[in-house]
Amino acid sequence: MRQNLLRADNKLLNYPIREVVTIGKQLEKLGNFKMIWENIGDPVTAGEAVPEWIKTIVRENAITDQAFAYTDTRGYLPTRQYVLDNFSNEKVCTVDDILFFNGLGEAINKVINNLPREARILVPSPTYPSHATAEAMHAGCSFISYQLDPENNWEPDLEEIENKVKYNDHVVAILVINPNNPTGSVFKRETLESIVKIAKEHDCFLIFDEIYHSMVFDGVDNTLLHEIIDDVPGISMKGISKDVPWPGSRCGWIEVYNAEKDREFQNFIKMILLAKMLEVCSTTLPQMILPYIYEAPEFEPYLKSRIAKYQRRAEQAVTQLNQLSNVRVSMPGGVFYLVVELLDLPRSSLIAKTKSIRLFIDNLLGNNTDSANSLADKKQERANADFQFCYELMGSEGICVVPLSGFGSNLHGFRMTLLQEDDVVFSQTLDAISRGIEHYYA
Amino acid sequence: MRQNLLRADNKLLNYPIREVVTIGKQLEKLGNFKMIWENIGDPVTAGEAVPEWIKTIVRENAITDQAFAYTDTRGYLPTRQYVLDNFSNEKVCTVDDILFFNGLGEAINKVINNLPREARILVPSPTYPSHATAEAMHAGCSFISYQLDPENNWEPDLEEIENKVKYNDHVVAILVINPNNPTGSVFKRETLESIVKIAKEHDCFLIFDEIYHSMVFDGVDNTLLHEIIDDVPGISMKGISKDVPWPGSRCGWIEVYNAEKDREFQNFIKMILLAKMLEVCSTTLPQMILPYIYEAPEFEPYLKSRIAKYQRRAEQAVTQLNQLSNVRVSMPGGVFYLVVELLDLPRSSLIAKTKSIRLFIDNLLGNNTDSANSLADKKQERANADFQFCYELMGSEGICVVPLSGFGSNLHGFRMTLLQEDDVVFSQTLDAISRGIEHYYA
Amino acid sequence: MRQNLLRADNKLLNYPIREVVTIGKQLEKLGNFKMIWENIGDPVTAGEAVPEWIKTIVRENAITDQAFAYTDTRGYLPTRQYVLDNFSNEKVCTVDDILFFNGLGEAINKVINNLPREARILVPSPTYPSHATAEAMHAGCSFISYQLDPENNWEPDLEEIENKVKYNDHVVAILVINPNNPTGSVFKRETLESIVKIAKEHDCFLIFDEIYHSMVFDGVDNTLLHEIIDDVPGISMKGISKDVPWPGSRCGWIEVYNAEKDREFQNFIKMILLAKMLEVCSTTLPQMILPYIYEAPEFEPYLKSRIAKYQRRAEQAVTQLNQLSNVRVSMPGGVFYLVVELLDLPRSSLIAKTKSIRLFIDNLLGNNTDSANSLADKKQERANADFQFCYELMGSEGICVVPLSGFGSNLHGFRMTLLQEDDVVFSQTLDAISRGIEHYYA
Amino acid sequence: MRQNLLRADNKLLNYPIREVVTIGKQLEKLGNFKMIWENIGDPVTAGEAVPEWIKTIVRENAITDQAFAYTDTRGYLPTRQYVLDNFSNEKVCTVDDILFFNGLGEAINKVINNLPREARILVPSPTYPSHATAEAMHAGCSFISYQLDPENNWEPDLEEIENKVKYNDHVVAILVINPNNPTGSVFKRETLESIVKIAKEHDCFLIFDEIYHSMVFDGVDNTLLHEIIDDVPGISMKGISKDVPWPGSRCGWIEVYNAEKDREFQNFIKMILLAKMLEVCSTTLPQMILPYIYEAPEFEPYLKSRIAKYQRRAEQAVTQLNQLSNVRVSMPGGVFYLVVELLDLPRSSLIAKTKSIRLFIDNLLGNNTDSANSLADKKQERANADFQFCYELMGSEGICVVPLSGFGSNLHGFRMTLLQEDDVVFSQTLDAISRGIEHYYA
Repeated sequence: MRQNLLRADNKLLNYPIREVVTIGKQLEKLGNFKMIWENIGDPVTAGEAVPEWIKTIVRENAITDQAFAYTDTRGYLPTRQYVLDNFSNEKVCTVDDILFFNGLGEAINKVINNLPREARILVPSPTYPSHATAEAMHAGCSFISYQLDPENNWEPDLEEIENKVKYNDHVVAILVINPNNPTGSVFKRETLESIVKIAKEHDCFLIFDEIYHSMVFDGVDNTLLHEIIDDVPGISMKGISKDVPWPGSRCGWIEVYNAEKDREFQNFIKMILLAKMLEVCSTTLPQMILPYIYEAPEFEPYLKSRIAKYQRRAEQAVTQLNQLSNVRVSMPGGVFYLVVELLDLPRSSLIAKTKSIRLFIDNLLGNNTDSANSLADKKQERANADFQFCYELMGSEGICVVPLSGFGSNLHGFRMTLLQEDDVVFSQTLDAISRGIEHYYA
Repeated sequence: MRQNLLRADNKLLNYPIREVVTIGKQLEKLGNFKMIWENIGDPVTAGEAVPEWIKTIVRENAITDQAFAYTDTRGYLPTRQYVLDNFSNEKVCTVDDILFFNGLGEAINKVINNLPREARILVPSPTYPSHATAEAMHAGCSFISYQLDPENNWEPDLEEIENKVKYNDHVVAILVINPNNPTGSVFKRETLESIVKIAKEHDCFLIFDEIYHSMVFDGVDNTLLHEIIDDVPGISMKGISKDVPWPGSRCGWIEVYNAEKDREFQNFIKMILLAKMLEVCSTTLPQMILPYIYEAPEFEPYLKSRIAKYQRRAEQAVTQLNQLSNVRVSMPGGVFYLVVELLDLPRSSLIAKTKSIRLFIDNLLGNNTDSANSLADKKQERANADFQFCYELMGSEGICVVPLSGFGSNLHGFRMTLLQEDDVVFSQTLDAISRGIEHYYA
Repeated sequence: MRQNLLRADNKLLNYPIREVVTIGKQLEKLGNFKMIWENIGDPVTAGEAVPEWIKTIVRENAITDQAFAYTDTRGYLPTRQYVLDNFSNEKVCTVDDILFFNGLGEAINKVINNLPREARILVPSPTYPSHATAEAMHAGCSFISYQLDPENNWEPDLEEIENKVKYNDHVVAILVINPNNPTGSVFKRETLESIVKIAKEHDCFLIFDEIYHSMVFDGVDNTLLHEIIDDVPGISMKGISKDVPWPGSRCGWIEVYNAEKDREFQNFIKMILLAKMLEVCSTTLPQMILPYIYEAPEFEPYLKSRIAKYQRRAEQAVTQLNQLSNVRVSMPGGVFYLVVELLDLPRSSLIAKTKSIRLFIDNLLGNNTDSANSLADKKQERANADFQFCYELMGSEGICVVPLSGFGSNLHGFRMTLLQEDDVVFSQTLDAISRGIEHYYA
Repeated sequence: MRQNLLRADNKLLNYPIREVVTIGKQLEKLGNFKMIWENIGDPVTAGEAVPEWIKTIVRENAITDQAFAYTDTRGYLPTRQYVLDNFSNEKVCTVDDILFFNGLGEAINKVINNLPREARILVPSPTYPSHATAEAMHAGCSFISYQLDPENNWEPDLEEIENKVKYNDHVVAILVINPNNPTGSVFKRETLESIVKIAKEHDCFLIFDEIYHSMVFDGVDNTLLHEIIDDVPGISMKGISKDVPWPGSRCGWIEVYNAEKDREFQNFIKMILLAKMLEVCSTTLPQMILPYIYEAPEFEPYLKSRIAKYQRRAEQAVTQLNQLSNVRVSMPGGVFYLVVELLDLPRSSLIAKTKSIRLFIDNLLGNNTDSANSLADKKQERANADFQFCYELMGSEGICVVPLSGFGSNLHGFRMTLLQEDDVVFSQTLDAISRGIEHYYA
């Protein structure tokens, strides 16, 4: 090519939690076994059947011509009205403040990339990688973050947030994921109110990723941004991928709150709308069907039963894993993930299913130092300790989980899902993970 | 807000062809009439009924659980295989070189934005605004372009392309829209071969927007990029919004050709895939249904009858409009648009339907100079002459068309659609447009 | 011009303290009087005669051919050796770590502009505007700063420095001006040691502007960076414009400390050297003469007597001005500036020397609201309160001082010089300033 | 360091012609011999004595206090007036359009860096590296250039200039070096007039580096930009380093022509002035002395005799070198450089003075493939063929010249100077070069 085609910031664009899958697939082939995939948050893939009544709704509403046409750039008007009436708040939002996107990934991308390069968003750590990577690519350097505290049920470190806002002029927004991915934590109302207060005091705006807003365990209270935002400008991100669950719909939206309260913020939202306009509109069909699903009498009991299952899974996992030494887990308040922290994680190994798996992992980790042509020679950096653990767990127990450091955290551990449909398989999985941890530390 | 939130390049992000719609809607209210919308290329909105057999296919295939789940980041594998077998070419493409996006708008955005800022793409003029605006935003300055020649049936100016590539080191790719939007032209094979040759000679890659590849009139030959690309790296962009037609699906894809022929190009494609990965995947359902529609026995005759209608409409319009002085139209070879060039276009006016419409348009154009508070005082630049004509045509004849200068062209005229279902309405529309032109020049 | 030539960040490039001079010159003409210029730190312009022995040294050493030739890019080797032996420290610096520039302005520019855009330098407030503006232009947004505390003798706010470093990942360096311009403060050794400790703990480097290192009052101890830097990477900036004084020589240098202690820092210094190389070298003659001046027996007593004068001036000014209410001044430890803080500064006025001066200032401040064509209509922002005071002082008392807010401070007040040669004129100046302040607050 | 300190564009900042010197110095040590330095354009270093009358002028004018003080940001007013009266043209320039810099290097840097990143300057090839590197760093990618034609006495390729301006919207200015460094060519008036015409037609501005404006051989006519610029905006760059000669003064200036003819251009010049203001002013002393030197009765004959020598040297060298096969040289029209083109240059070698020199050069070129720790293993790219020739010439004949490809050219050859004071040494040098070339091709 006559010119360089590689952006100078290409190193910032990575997605480590997907690398694990690639490696896992190679291990499956080498060992001729079937991996148990505890890594991905897709209920459908994890075996939850899509209920017949949802399929019927889709079938019946795909009939209209309108479902095939472009819709408004902002999104299908009746659905925006439905969202306003049911998920949002007329005190801080209008029907024109709701913008539909092709999934939250696109929403995140459009929101973050339409800021000036020097305007930074403070993201949590651990975090959902799409936020962190988008923030880093936008700024042209590493993302900036505040800690979720594993000793305090993964609540945000409020002092750190306040200091990072107060002492870093670049920060224009605080990102909160609540209920939280990956930790499953549902933050206390006081915590969230304090974050709103910090934003207000320091003239920032708020971004709340609330995609899991309805995935809350029995007895847990979830506070939504629109309930507490007061007159601070803010954005709530929601979608139908998790609760319906229809991840393949790529149907998410943002609710903009208090747009009119700040001229700068208003201009920024206008940029997002213009950028969206260049891609005409988001997928029509899921938008049109959305209200029918949420209004169906079957929805509420269906969701409840799913959540009850996750809660059961979480309780079982927390109880069992907390018995291990060097392990710390907190009981989640919702969502369908569990983060298992591995304290003082050593560099160790497990017995691989086959010799070829052993050699593959050794090569990956650069352990076979006698080989002159080791792949590792070409590697600049050593894999994080918890990546190593996850490789060993895959190669030995055939279970794929995601290393915690892959979520932009400097803690070690992993995230597993609570989606498993089969009780026996879930128990076996927990046993295998426990065994893997014990042997790894031994 | 504590910091500026407005990107320095915000002025580059505009979409003038949407402004016309906003103004049209206001005129409808002021004059209490119904506009005939000849501006938008959405067959469904334009009154073409979605055939029952398509709806049935969607209905029947929305049943599977998989349709609700995430799919591969690249797209649903069987559909990628189908695309490879039916629309692409195994000689230059593999199943992994096909990437699905949420509509071509997203594909354009991801392709252009993952280039380094100084790497420029040469776009046609007139052009589809999404390409031009994405290119400008990416580069941080005006887009760069080559002319389509209205005196030569809107064929690309090959000499200009060659010179702009040869003498501008920034250019790394040539963008071709074929069959062409907005002109409806289907380029000659020799023209396209020459463009491939230029790219090869100057070590560039090619981007062909072929979204209208099957919308070709009877007797016209369309040449696809993969037929002629040889060993030049290239990207073809296609989708189902126009021929199925299912614009609301936001289902488009790119086919990457000869990725392995250039390491720089390969790295660039890898960046696109990584960026896509951050948004997980594209909408699953339309991808899964795609092969069923194209394979349906009803598809071929259905498409043929639609194209036949567009061809009839085009012939009628070309014949009638070419009789007017100061007008130049070329018979399109496909697509469902017609560009009507208005030569030596004056600043003039038409008789508005109501006085309030007159005042509104005058205000818009800054004509009422006696008014101290005229909107125009705040306007920095005067509307282009063809924007003025389109405002007058809306206010007088109630027909909305898109000014040609809104497509990044320095020619004057407008683009109208050929989608109208009703023969009588179409004839009346043509009469009204002819009348408008004649009076405007009078 | 065919393309825009105005950089998007052009608004960041300003130098407010020069605007005052332009206005002052206009006032001189309007009122037909001679301004007393207390704004500029050029001893020669302020009336200090260049001693005959310095002129003789220049005369005698301009004879060599070498004084006309290019010198090394780093600077004239014997002079670098002299600087190392006399102003620097072999423990942390070598002769190749000393780089000569055409004045500190160039050094500042080259140092700051060769950092990546996202790497920020924390600068003091108030500050010397060249640092702040260079930092802002480099980053593409406002400069970031820590406060010097007027209630604590203008010592740096250590807590703020620590927090801004700790909580803002962008910060890679802390800039200290010691002895300080504009406040005249000479920082305590403990303060400076604490700053070194902060840099060490947070893995930053240090930039000390020590151009006034020898301008320290009797009884005051000045601590140099090289005495306390330990193993932290750092840069000291010095020059001959103030102590020799030879501002017209544009002869400054940087001493790089502990370059070898950090690979990133070393690469950064290499970039500075390469950038310097493109401009070949710095002016040769002053570099060659430098050691002769410092080694002359006359130098020491000459410098002492100048400093003694500044100290006398400072004592007189502090005593007199502190008697005024609403005024806060601290006794400087060196340099030849005094910052006079004006507490709760109102918007007020003084009696202008002539009516045309009155009208000019009113116009400048946008006070003549009855005038339809007031300049102020076109002004977007109102002048800071202390700029207003300085305009009034010029127009009434004929004395030009620089508003404190022009030094990147959010405090109000002004900086005056202590350079005045004539005792009587200095007393009259102080009286006039005092009178101005009293009337302004009255 | 806590953050990356290396700019992404660091690779663009290089100065290959200085590398040769470093290597030459190492060879001197290895072979224990004295290199003849034909690489650097510093008459003083090359042995031309600075005449006594110049030294006297400096001595006598360094007496004034003003010579020690800051001067105006634009430069010392009487000298700017002198420059206007003697080197510039009141028809297109005023005294305020003349800005002094610390050498042309700084002027180039300030001019180029104050353009928006996308505004490009077309530079000649071969070129003086400071221009090309500054242009590349400013744009963030390789510099863009037009060819000087070795078959046409190094005249600019007008067709290429016109095409590169016409077909590349990024180009806002054309840079011309006349009389030319490195080729020594003095361009024809018609050529220069054509370039002005191109700029006018395409709405660009002109930058003429005219530092050698008075170094023109007997019988050759030089055309200055101000004589032909008409109403096109332009910048002439001049200085006293070559004709006085006082390279160590770092005293150059720009003359801005027709600033008022284009608002964009005017704003751009304002940015340059503001950037200059941040560094206060340029070195005062040489500015003050400048008119005295040019006005001295000795100046004219002194300059003439120097030029006569260069012309003699050029004639001798051209005659002798043109007798060699594979060599092409054109008789220069001025300056004190000669470019010797080496046609179809092979990869070859010469007999090194010592074995250690041989090993050093082999290592440099990556020839000793048996060595496991060869430096070349770490080198990514092979040295250009003419760099190889120059290394061999240094190692064998002890003569240092600069490879032509180091001047941003894709031709092979080298630049030598015509400064040598001693007739015998010059003849010996020519003989040695001739011998080197013959053996290298043998």
